Amino acid sequence: MIKVGIIGLGYWGPNLVRNFQSVNGAEVIAVADFDDNRLGKIHQLYPKIKLFKDAEELFNLSEIDAVVLATPINTHYTLAKTALLKGKHVLVEKPLATSRAEVLELIDIAGEKELSLMVDHTFLYTGAVQKIKSVVDSGELGKLQYFDSTRINLGLFNPNWSVIWDLAVHDLSIFDYISGGKKPVAVSATGVSHTQLGIENLAYISLYFEDDTFAHITSSWISPVKIRKTLIGGSNKMIIYDDVEPTEKIKIYDSGFSVSSPEDVHKWLIDYRFGDIYIPKLPQMEALKGVAEDFIGSIRDKSLPLASSESGLNVVTILEAAQKSLVNRGQTINL
Amino acid sequence: MIKVGIIGLGYWGPNLVRNFQSVNGAEVIAVADFDDNRLGKIHQLYPKIKLFKDAEELFNLSEIDAVVLATPINTHYTLAKTALLKGKHVLVEKPLATSRAEVLELIDIAGEKELSLMVDHTFLYTGAVQKIKSVVDSGELGKLQYFDSTRINLGLFNPNWSVIWDLAVHDLSIFDYISGGKKPVAVSATGVSHTQLGIENLAYISLYFEDDTFAHITSSWISPVKIRKTLIGGSNKMIIYDDVEPTEKIKIYDSGFSVSSPEDVHKWLIDYRFGDIYIPKLPQMEALKGVAEDFIGSIRDKSLPLASSESGLNVVTILEAAQKSLVNRGQTINL
Amino acid sequence: MIKVGIIGLGYWGPNLVRNFQSVNGAEVIAVADFDDNRLGKIHQLYPKIKLFKDAEELFNLSEIDAVVLATPINTHYTLAKTALLKGKHVLVEKPLATSRAEVLELIDIAGEKELSLMVDHTFLYTGAVQKIKSVVDSGELGKLQYFDSTRINLGLFNPNWSVIWDLAVHDLSIFDYISGGKKPVAVSATGVSHTQLGIENLAYISLYFEDDTFAHITSSWISPVKIRKTLIGGSNKMIIYDDVEPTEKIKIYDSGFSVSSPEDVHKWLIDYRFGDIYIPKLPQMEALKGVAEDFIGSIRDKSLPLASSESGLNVVTILEAAQKSLVNRGQTINL
Amino acid sequence: MIKVGIIGLGYWGPNLVRNFQSVNGAEVIAVADFDDNRLGKIHQLYPKIKLFKDAEELFNLSEIDAVVLATPINTHYTLAKTALLKGKHVLVEKPLATSRAEVLELIDIAGEKELSLMVDHTFLYTGAVQKIKSVVDSGELGKLQYFDSTRINLGLFNPNWSVIWDLAVHDLSIFDYISGGKKPVAVSATGVSHTQLGIENLAYISLYFEDDTFAHITSSWISPVKIRKTLIGGSNKMIIYDDVEPTEKIKIYDSGFSVSSPEDVHKWLIDYRFGDIYIPKLPQMEALKGVAEDFIGSIRDKSLPLASSESGLNVVTILEAAQKSLVNRGQTINL
Repeated sequence: MIKVGIIGLGYWGPNLVRNFQSVNGAEVIAVADFDDNRLGKIHQLYPKIKLFKDAEELFNLSEIDAVVLATPINTHYTLAKTALLKGKHVLVEKPLATSRAEVLELIDIAGEKELSLMVDHTFLYTGAVQKIKSVVDSGELGKLQYFDSTRINLGLFNPNWSVIWDLAVHDLSIFDYISGGKKPVAVSATGVSHTQLGIENLAYISLYFEDDTFAHITSSWISPVKIRKTLIGGSNKMIIYDDVEPTEKIKIYDSGFSVSSPEDVHKWLIDYRFGDIYIPKLPQMEALKGVAEDFIGSIRDKSLPLASSESGLNVVTILEAAQKSLVNRGQTINL
Repeated sequence: MIKVGIIGLGYWGPNLVRNFQSVNGAEVIAVADFDDNRLGKIHQLYPKIKLFKDAEELFNLSEIDAVVLATPINTHYTLAKTALLKGKHVLVEKPLATSRAEVLELIDIAGEKELSLMVDHTFLYTGAVQKIKSVVDSGELGKLQYFDSTRINLGLFNPNWSVIWDLAVHDLSIFDYISGGKKPVAVSATGVSHTQLGIENLAYISLYFEDDTFAHITSSWISPVKIRKTLIGGSNKMIIYDDVEPTEKIKIYDSGFSVSSPEDVHKWLIDYRFGDIYIPKLPQMEALKGVAEDFIGSIRDKSLPLASSESGLNVVTILEAAQKSLVNRGQTINL
Repeated sequence: MIKVGIIGLGYWGPNLVRNFQSVNGAEVIAVADFDDNRLGKIHQLYPKIKLFKDAEELFNLSEIDAVVLATPINTHYTLAKTALLKGKHVLVEKPLATSRAEVLELIDIAGEKELSLMVDHTFLYTGAVQKIKSVVDSGELGKLQYFDSTRINLGLFNPNWSVIWDLAVHDLSIFDYISGGKKPVAVSATGVSHTQLGIENLAYISLYFEDDTFAHITSSWISPVKIRKTLIGGSNKMIIYDDVEPTEKIKIYDSGFSVSSPEDVHKWLIDYRFGDIYIPKLPQMEALKGVAEDFIGSIRDKSLPLASSESGLNVVTILEAAQKSLVNRGQTINL
Repeated sequence: MIKVGIIGLGYWGPNLVRNFQSVNGAEVIAVADFDDNRLGKIHQLYPKIKLFKDAEELFNLSEIDAVVLATPINTHYTLAKTALLKGKHVLVEKPLATSRAEVLELIDIAGEKELSLMVDHTFLYTGAVQKIKSVVDSGELGKLQYFDSTRINLGLFNPNWSVIWDLAVHDLSIFDYISGGKKPVAVSATGVSHTQLGIENLAYISLYFEDDTFAHITSSWISPVKIRKTLIGGSNKMIIYDDVEPTEKIKIYDSGFSVSSPEDVHKWLIDYRFGDIYIPKLPQMEALKGVAEDFIGSIRDKSLPLASSESGLNVVTILEAAQKSLVNRGQTINL
């Protein structure tokens, strides 16, 4: 039985408690939060779980094998480092940390201590993203040409971190997963803050790669409607993933274009293809349950989880570069 | 009676002939195209119209008052200049020309010769854009915060000019109109070509302004679906303009956010408002008829058309800067 | 404190327990179900609630003031009658009973004993239906012309009662409420069974009234998609209520038609009006909580609940007539 | 060359002229209409076509091989009969005539004189209906269980014929075609008139068959929105045909249900299947061109057109019975 402690009982923490309680081979034995009310609610539902107001005290419980951090972004690095140094396996809410340097240090420590370090890239564990991954990996999509993802709504502003750390992190994690960890060579990001604090609430990220793959992400907290739509273009097929759709989330288009006479550039011709559309039935999965199982599995089997620290590194590397570009009006950041 | 000659009988030209024929006070008396077939078709429908294979010959007809150019982009400047110098009023298909310098020169000539110079920014003459303009001008929208427009489909590649010259030109003309000619101070654009010719078929433009207004445009010829959607955020209301919708093109959202305690930045609070939605009935207008009438009116009344050469200048200025940024991976271009 | 017992812990029962527990002035003190597992689950969540395997034993608890019946349709009459005779207020899941005669008898007993008898017409307590009711009552809709409601999906067959007793009951209760209890003078229903048991899984009900109001209901358990859409036509405005829409459930159309010269039938003319559309923000309400509060309020204040026994009678009267017509291929049943 | 005369130049007539002009082997040589304006417009476009104010005069032209009737419903029978008796092949706008007796008489005359008699069931010639037909005929759909079609909008009232003669005629012709001419054994129809003339503007038709196939049609001129949606349920798959969709008109659902233990009715169990969805690319066809070609082909090759007089008979038979039921509040009419 792997014994788990969960830090942070805000919006996401109670869901983590519930899901980890349901994983075979795992047991939540302690939680920590500075807020008595939140602790009280967990106590009502799970009287056996130990309560702490301080994360470090929880880390000091020798019987704890693994901890889950559902705390504000800027605490991730310090808490994760502390926990790793005390020999705990660590699962961190997205993003893994706030800079590439921080993530690299955490990876090093985890490596030295042979501990599992994982990040909660929840969307990787949905039926929709699993399906996209399988379409890409099977070759059905062809060469990946573009990834264009929009994630906008009238949403809660984070007072300290721009919208890309809250929303684009999802799109980047999905891209990283389905592209097999494809790394951009340059980043350009633009956006704006509409409040006095100067935290960008509307932002756009462009990613350049060695080949002609291109990725673009739109993030906004100030849209009147909720849109979560990703277009994925391949040389054979194209996919539209609409996460707001209750059942028909994935549409696979047998449409595309091809250049017919590339030798003579003066006579080139584009052929267009409009074909059938296919809406696959998606496996029913509770994503967060998948996250919890993958983390516990990675500890038990010393295996690599889908949302590995490596994928966390890739995502944070881009976010950090994008934020740098963002404050410089789209300036190209080479990676 | 204002006598009109139309140059170029490709896709758009015959529509121009038909619409100008229906304008009171105007008459199409000549057309020019190098293609005999195209000339023949016009002759069948309108036997009285004179046919020319060369535009200059048409310009030499002394009875011609005004010419309309529906020719490829790179011919706009030369043909317009020639026609103006021969004393003809000129309407040019979008974009007006291929650089700010060219447009400025055309404006100068038109000014000296007191001729009307207009660009066919067709969308300005739709019921939808007219409605948006009235909502913005009435103050109902509040301070303009953002303009985010997507215009994508699986569309005809232009072999010489990137997708922004074909598609973003529409969005930029709409923005210019509804914002009252608001000029950006910086441009950043990104994108990619997926063919050997290196013409970008997927591109994104960001516009910065002196205040916190922000604009972003997505253009693509390689989307499996046709999307033409514009989000316009104001401090009071927000608008979604979906041009693919057959009847409910404009939705006005009484939703928004406001910062409640701006003095103490540590205690700031965002209030969110989700309110009613209103879908106004739009006036039925044939946009191209409106273009033709506005051009003829501008000649007759020496008035300024909505799609003035000034708006043409604003749009081309941005396109030129965006193209420069585009080939430099998002490099900021200050204006 | 009004003490409540709940009979039937299948799909709906546990929701009733939870909601009644949260009503001020009410307390669930006992539940009954023949299934030990279901009883066990309630016990885990609410250890103080008494458990019974037999409804009658629960009815015999003298401290019980009110009972809620969430049992199969054919048990409603007998259980409700027994409970009323023992002096308990009674809330019954829809439909109230299986025939007009049964409902009338229950109403009589409740009347004699001055007990509250209510039926769980849940939709009456939603923000959407409340909004429609207010639009109708304000006169904004004008004269009610038609009500056309579709409620279909690939849903659980009931082995004993046709689809109208499961689905049309919702539409009929909504019609009864928004029309102010308007009673049809004739019913025709058609439909079919696609299984060996002969229970109709697809059915249509038409209702005639003394004036030219018309109502039609489509019910199906065998549709590949879930549709819950109601069109309500008035002489001034029309409403579309789409319950599958997450947020924009109600659209009010300022569209209509009017006959312009009714005197001379040979010269009549229909004028059509296409106007604005308005999507009101709906109040957030948990419908079942509203049901529970209305029931408790009706007991405490001796008031009439929205989902009164009278509305239950109206609905069952129509269902009974419709079923009779249904087995006779649409035969008109006069009421 | 088959020489064609077209009677009636209202809304549909000019489209017929244009389409018949484009059919190889056919030529429109005359048209008739009582309205000089309409005749004048045809003359402008086709100066060689002869103009008549009276249909009979046109019928008397000996060179005319075939006539097309695009006149009001109540004139169909008389005009078609006259034309047939004069030895002309006849294509009639839907519906073929106003009663089964009329259609039978026309069929008899056409048979005796070996003339082609066809009805313009335009939808049969669309890519969407062709696709549905092929799915049904291939066996992919399985046993046809239901056909449920809704065709409503805020549309032009016909002052003499109820909405079913205007709209349901389309749905009935589609059903007749895809079901291979399956004939109902009973009809029930309901509906209402909201004007003083008593012409039903809202109506519903139910069709019973010898087996458990069921069909239902909703027709309305008073809906605030345009809906043209047909659900077709089979024992293997289900189809949704949404004619308002610009491109994705047909969705094929691999969903369904099956009864697993039919022997023991007390233990029956329904299995539900939710599977993939498939949106086929549809062939691009101009439907009316297809109608014209099929008519000309039927004359030239003495072949049976898709929209044969037999299908016209089936549709009129149902419409006549439905109208009889409609005025009797759903009374069952056995066929």
